[in-house]
Amino acid sequence: MTDSTISLNDLPIRDDLRGQEPYGAPQLDVPVRLNTNENPYPPSPRLVAALSEAIADIAGGLNRYPDRDAVELRKDLADYLGNGVTARQVWAANGSNEIIQQILQAFGGPGRTALGFEPSYSMHPIITGVSGTRWINAHRDEDFGLEAERAVAAVEEHRPDIVFLTSPNNPTGTALSLDAIEAVLRVAPGMVVVDEAYAEFRREGTPSALSLLSGNPRLIVTRTMSKAFAMAGTRVGYLAADPAVVDALLLVRLPYHLSAVTQAVARTAIAHQEELLGAVQTLRDERDALVAWLRGEGLTVADSDANFVLFGRFPDRHRVWQGILDRGVLIREVGPPEWLRVSVGTPDEMAAFRTALKESL
Amino acid sequence: MTDSTISLNDLPIRDDLRGQEPYGAPQLDVPVRLNTNENPYPPSPRLVAALSEAIADIAGGLNRYPDRDAVELRKDLADYLGNGVTARQVWAANGSNEIIQQILQAFGGPGRTALGFEPSYSMHPIITGVSGTRWINAHRDEDFGLEAERAVAAVEEHRPDIVFLTSPNNPTGTALSLDAIEAVLRVAPGMVVVDEAYAEFRREGTPSALSLLSGNPRLIVTRTMSKAFAMAGTRVGYLAADPAVVDALLLVRLPYHLSAVTQAVARTAIAHQEELLGAVQTLRDERDALVAWLRGEGLTVADSDANFVLFGRFPDRHRVWQGILDRGVLIREVGPPEWLRVSVGTPDEMAAFRTALKESL
Repeated sequence: MTDSTISLNDLPIRDDLRGQEPYGAPQLDVPVRLNTNENPYPPSPRLVAALSEAIADIAGGLNRYPDRDAVELRKDLADYLGNGVTARQVWAANGSNEIIQQILQAFGGPGRTALGFEPSYSMHPIITGVSGTRWINAHRDEDFGLEAERAVAAVEEHRPDIVFLTSPNNPTGTALSLDAIEAVLRVAPGMVVVDEAYAEFRREGTPSALSLLSGNPRLIVTRTMSKAFAMAGTRVGYLAADPAVVDALLLVRLPYHLSAVTQAVARTAIAHQEELLGAVQTLRDERDALVAWLRGEGLTVADSDANFVLFGRFPDRHRVWQGILDRGVLIREVGPPEWLRVSVGTPDEMAAFRTALKESL
Repeated sequence: MTDSTISLNDLPIRDDLRGQEPYGAPQLDVPVRLNTNENPYPPSPRLVAALSEAIADIAGGLNRYPDRDAVELRKDLADYLGNGVTARQVWAANGSNEIIQQILQAFGGPGRTALGFEPSYSMHPIITGVSGTRWINAHRDEDFGLEAERAVAAVEEHRPDIVFLTSPNNPTGTALSLDAIEAVLRVAPGMVVVDEAYAEFRREGTPSALSLLSGNPRLIVTRTMSKAFAMAGTRVGYLAADPAVVDALLLVRLPYHLSAVTQAVARTAIAHQEELLGAVQTLRDERDALVAWLRGEGLTVADSDANFVLFGRFPDRHRVWQGILDRGVLIREVGPPEWLRVSVGTPDEMAAFRTALKESL
């Protein structure tokens, strides 16, 4: 049998999945890829050697199941986070997508609701839907920020079981104030998830919700090693929360979900954090220069605390996106209409982007 | 904050999770571990070196997301499976647990049901429950087999959206006839999953459901690299099915769920399949010898096509299990009351088990 004998719609899939398309940015083979907010700086030869050695160290035991609770990795992640966070407060999984899925499996589900403020990370509503939880779309402010009063009103109106706050927010780049997060924590009847996938890129003075963990047992802060740590290919997401939250996730996690290989690679990357995070400052500078340049070109640009920038506004954004792609630069057609998102790359990649954008306009 | 300020029950977890315990065999540090059906033969120094090199080859690109569709790995797995299976018919994930979860997310969910014949793999009902699907427990025959007529009657009575057949079955070791599987396929209104995690260990003449794929677009055969491939630490499960089934799973899979590291390690292991599967014949012989020895001791033993053996019957099985553990051998207290399960290890490990068991009785 070489080809499908039937089509997807002939199968008894769940009704709410019918007609849907798989999620995911196009994986196109172009010279400059600025579409998935990857870190453009690859691991150094020194780190590559260390990763290879780490696998050599553990490969002789791969016939055995991994440490189901990833204890050593969680210690390393807790040390990295600081803020008094302990290993018991940390949980790790295959990408922050799996972290989010486990949160929904433990605290959401049929008859429950999750609320987010869109435009935001599009996997939040998708994973919510797959978990059988009902998604409620609240809205961000006009400038993609979120005032405390407005957030509180949405939470009080809908009383969701889970609130997603994203800071810095994808795809807009905007961060939240601690005031807004604290205000939501005060009124939320259920769990409050602050998705900080891009936290390391935030500008000087922008706070992290990690500082709010103490005394807020229903707060979950999620992070990832895909961005600042330049480990998108390794798929490690993690969270910090009250130890009771970790206990709850143990009830829904697939046993041995995190491979021995993943644990070893992640620990090695954390041990080389100085190298990996060194590139973060470079990317922040490049980001700020990009925002200034785009504004200088007369474009509208959202404030960014992330490693990407949302800019516009284009009545026909697809034409602009295609024009840039035709010049070998792939950015992302995502978020609110009339806007485009570009990841911050190396100086050469950004020069290619600037040229491609100017020629496309 | 160093300790939990609250307990799990103070959190708004789903009602059906309240009072549950996390799934998983105890991870105890004892000399002989025969409790999780691991392959006792570790990767050779040659394979360890190849794995380390494979990571060195890809680590320089770990700042980029992995191939979301794992195309090359799926090709390798299809080649390994034979039976005319193509890459389009194969899907891979982090352990067969994640494969099962994706099947339930696509074809199960609230208002739907999944049926299995217990005693069987205990993660089937657990993952079913987490997905919001209702679990229906049918029963195996007295000898842990499953006659076609009995299976058909259960499917016709309950009309489940998903049927789980497990062959060879865990924890009993018993395989199903193709007749039984075909009979279920004829009457099942939804998907039929044949879990073949232990397929490579089956005795001469025992069939695989792979031969039934052609013309059965609602059949899914799941496999794993954790057992015969001795890669439990790598966490790779996979399935073969109609390409339309793979299309369905693309709607629920978390994007980039399978890391570049996992894909590289799995492909390297498959390239060394001759070495890894060479140990399978040794384990089959050891298994058959174990069954004969246990029967010679006057014990009741289920026929086994797997790398473990279920034996009994002990009115107080916990006492026997503890006696064996006290002698440094960890087996599994699982399955029907009065029975115990032991994984097949190396000749030395089995000698230790035989001694420990005799002393405990």
